[in-house]
Amino acid sequence: MSYGGIEAGGTKWVCAIDDGPGKLGETLTLPTTTPAETIANAAAFFSRSNGLAGIGVGSFGPIDLRRSSSTWGSITTTPKPGWAHTDIVSALSAALGLPVAFDTDVNAAALGEQRWGAAIGLETFSYITVGTGIGGGGMANGRLLHGLLHPEVGHMFVPHDRTRDPFDGVCPYHGDCFEGLASGGAIRARWGKPAEQLDDPAAWELEAEYLAFGLANVVCTLSPQRIVIGGGVMKRAGLLDLVRARLRGLLAGYIAAPELGDKIDDYVVSPALGDRAGVLGAIELARRAALDGG
Amino acid sequence: MSYGGIEAGGTKWVCAIDDGPGKLGETLTLPTTTPAETIANAAAFFSRSNGLAGIGVGSFGPIDLRRSSSTWGSITTTPKPGWAHTDIVSALSAALGLPVAFDTDVNAAALGEQRWGAAIGLETFSYITVGTGIGGGGMANGRLLHGLLHPEVGHMFVPHDRTRDPFDGVCPYHGDCFEGLASGGAIRARWGKPAEQLDDPAAWELEAEYLAFGLANVVCTLSPQRIVIGGGVMKRAGLLDLVRARLRGLLAGYIAAPELGDKIDDYVVSPALGDRAGVLGAIELARRAALDGG
Repeated sequence: MSYGGIEAGGTKWVCAIDDGPGKLGETLTLPTTTPAETIANAAAFFSRSNGLAGIGVGSFGPIDLRRSSSTWGSITTTPKPGWAHTDIVSALSAALGLPVAFDTDVNAAALGEQRWGAAIGLETFSYITVGTGIGGGGMANGRLLHGLLHPEVGHMFVPHDRTRDPFDGVCPYHGDCFEGLASGGAIRARWGKPAEQLDDPAAWELEAEYLAFGLANVVCTLSPQRIVIGGGVMKRAGLLDLVRARLRGLLAGYIAAPELGDKIDDYVVSPALGDRAGVLGAIELARRAALDGG
Repeated sequence: MSYGGIEAGGTKWVCAIDDGPGKLGETLTLPTTTPAETIANAAAFFSRSNGLAGIGVGSFGPIDLRRSSSTWGSITTTPKPGWAHTDIVSALSAALGLPVAFDTDVNAAALGEQRWGAAIGLETFSYITVGTGIGGGGMANGRLLHGLLHPEVGHMFVPHDRTRDPFDGVCPYHGDCFEGLASGGAIRARWGKPAEQLDDPAAWELEAEYLAFGLANVVCTLSPQRIVIGGGVMKRAGLLDLVRARLRGLLAGYIAAPELGDKIDDYVVSPALGDRAGVLGAIELARRAALDGG
């Protein structure tokens, strides 16, 4: 029995078929164009494969995860042109005649990391990605975080000292929310160049400070056993250590756990699965849905 | 079989014996003095009662909730004089010869509200109290939030516009964290009078804004199905409605759920058990521990 997975991102879709637990077989990367074209291209890839038992999708969002909702399986209010209110699950299941499991891209990646990566066996942890935007998922008490809908850690509010950083932020909804200040998109807008080309140490200190504020708020709210943080911006050499140091300083010893002190290097960690976490987790979503469904 | 519960607060301890599920029998309120005296007075109350099967404690904190830790059952780094590193569980179990269950005051209250109050049956919700300090607990996926230790929502970081509010905050660890800006202690220090005597509408607008920032961050991080918010400061007439309106405005429609729009009055609610939530939940902690332990 094999399963397919899609990491459905705003820039690209990674589609893959499993080759055993935690292993990727055939993999196709597609640009994210229009909903109709992107979904058709993904469906064509999976339809060439015989014996698939189901598909899992980890999607950019926000998405509707309420089982009781008539729009379950859809993207909802995304600012990405053309994609608001796209019913991904219905389109894929109609095209393929297969069951389709659905969750956020970051919850799928969290699941991958919890099965085979940097959060193996943990019951309560966060998975955060800092790329063009900032997303977050994870588990609490052994299950993926859903609740009302799903977390949107990129849209929390963090301190913003405008005397030091007069930048207004890039979030079309909230301006200077966490994502508005600290995402790759914010870096590009503030400094006029992408993160990969930014070498000013003061700029990276500022970035580390915003990221540490965000992580501190996750620690104070969810109390994760670990934070896995990845994404394109985190590939900057030295940034992870800056964030760890700043987080430790911000919490100032109040939460008495070695994980927030001497052992912070084991507490705030990079993903172990790299770019494969999302699609491996999406495949695992499909496998779990099939098992749960009988 | 009856159980005892203690809501162990920094100002007072409420000790009670149950009179059936969700009902309080004999109840004693003690001032919180020294650890030795307070614990001895509580133990004396319970020792007069025959047939108690166990005690549950919902404690102010931070506390050590790691079962594997040698200091499990202790208060850890509290700024309250004399109380840091007090081993409450050992002292009570030695005095009474009974099993003692232990959690945060806010998790105990959350449990009470989930069994008999404003969060009945919810799997993922937050319970927040705004009093002298700000605390938060709740459940995720049907179990109380623990993770690394337990949430400390009062110590998250929120936007602070010093041109509008030059107040430095009162948190001895973090200055202008959420609790440092928005707790009853912060109100008293900023305005020179306690919340009960504060009538300036602009002051309450500012308070509502900070509270809405905190709740928005909880929504973005945990995605609760509901937020139960109480405590002395929330008794201010009209404040809850100000917070709801400001929260709705802050999130700006990004999270597409009626609970954060038209139905926000059912999403951000007052506790239904009032001052009884903590001690009823503490009793329930004891009952659950006895059942789990066989």
